[in-house]
Amino acid sequence: MALILVTNDDGVLSEGLLELFNAMKEVAEAVIVAPDRERSATSHSLTMHRPLRVTEIRENVYAINGTPTDCVTLGIGKILKRPPDLVASGINKGGNLGDDITYSGTVSAAFEGTILGVPSFAISMLWEEGGGFHFNTASEFAKEIAKKILDKGLPRDTLLNVNVPNVKAEDIAGVKFTKQGKRLYSNSIQETFDPWGKKHFWIGGGSPSWEEDEKTDFLAVESGFISITPLHLDLTNYDALNNITNQWKDLNGPRR
Amino acid sequence: MALILVTNDDGVLSEGLLELFNAMKEVAEAVIVAPDRERSATSHSLTMHRPLRVTEIRENVYAINGTPTDCVTLGIGKILKRPPDLVASGINKGGNLGDDITYSGTVSAAFEGTILGVPSFAISMLWEEGGGFHFNTASEFAKEIAKKILDKGLPRDTLLNVNVPNVKAEDIAGVKFTKQGKRLYSNSIQETFDPWGKKHFWIGGGSPSWEEDEKTDFLAVESGFISITPLHLDLTNYDALNNITNQWKDLNGPRR
Repeated sequence: MALILVTNDDGVLSEGLLELFNAMKEVAEAVIVAPDRERSATSHSLTMHRPLRVTEIRENVYAINGTPTDCVTLGIGKILKRPPDLVASGINKGGNLGDDITYSGTVSAAFEGTILGVPSFAISMLWEEGGGFHFNTASEFAKEIAKKILDKGLPRDTLLNVNVPNVKAEDIAGVKFTKQGKRLYSNSIQETFDPWGKKHFWIGGGSPSWEEDEKTDFLAVESGFISITPLHLDLTNYDALNNITNQWKDLNGPRR
Repeated sequence: MALILVTNDDGVLSEGLLELFNAMKEVAEAVIVAPDRERSATSHSLTMHRPLRVTEIRENVYAINGTPTDCVTLGIGKILKRPPDLVASGINKGGNLGDDITYSGTVSAAFEGTILGVPSFAISMLWEEGGGFHFNTASEFAKEIAKKILDKGLPRDTLLNVNVPNVKAEDIAGVKFTKQGKRLYSNSIQETFDPWGKKHFWIGGGSPSWEEDEKTDFLAVESGFISITPLHLDLTNYDALNNITNQWKDLNGPRR
């Protein structure tokens, strides 16, 4: 039977994680290895300056005092009894779209799985002002995508970043394969003061705007579709590599 | 006069940062905005769960109790008096090669600069067992690359990841434009015990091996060349996007 490692960045107590875990258990054997608390926006951080503690909370549920990337590393390297066939990360509370995916612990966990040679996907549900989350819409789709990956595999060094509109399952317009969109706003920064009157800055808030471009993740979810973006471990810009190699000839080549 | 924001992930006290700062001051006006302590392997983490404090240590040197990404965000958004023309991140103690770049705070700072529309490069010096760092080799080259970028610009959404062999300047073989290499080892994990006898895990150590492939960052530095890899903000795997769109037709498209 296939084995699925389930993780997230909202922490082991997150409702989205349990929804994903239950969905994955309908597809295969599933084990949670997740951060013991919220670790949003930790990106691909790896904890190397201190030891990490693994706590078995109950059968097949492990919590680690570390990041999502730590969880995948230790899950595959030390906790699971055999290598998993799939890493499933989520369901994140809030979308992971465009350039913002590089901040995301959820997506980074799927990056780490891919680096370690395990097919991986991240799944996130869009945030809605004041409302809750229709996690069931995402968990139902997670089953489809997990089966597909277990059946067909994924291209080498490639993970899937899935974003699901925050609506009931019957209100999903469909599924679109997309490219990463481009965010236009810079990070919003609030000013605040400590109890002694010293100014501090708090990063967050603000509403993003997006570059108008066809076939993006952002446009898909905005039109009510589930977005699936295949992401690559190789960040090389090959066009730029060709151009710069030609244009910066004076820098290039041997010097002695 | 051009303005350069200088940052790193080894912290504001790091010798590599000061070397880079002094080099950049020979090219343009330069301001340090860096983490107040070491923040290695923090990747593209953004601190959003607490306010951040900015301390002016001396003229044009600011420390923040946050990550490299926080420093670039606040540096550009709040601290610098005008938008910088360049973000320079480093000199990191240790190479940032292959898949490991996604863990790196140094490279992520250059990512953040690029997201905010400022041409950016990261520069790292390879680690050598037991030895120190020939920072001067890297800082001399940093001047060349900074002038080049200020003069020619960079392709859109593209940053440069520079790795410098840890040798004297006269022993540098030359410069190569490269692609991101592929690491083969998984993260090494040590087992250790706390004072109460409970097992912990510590991620780190181990020696990487690399997939044999021409034109990689790893191969360049191994043969004594400075490696320059252009990296892209867009992580979409376009080949996979085309293939999956065709092959996973049953998933794709409208559902209602």
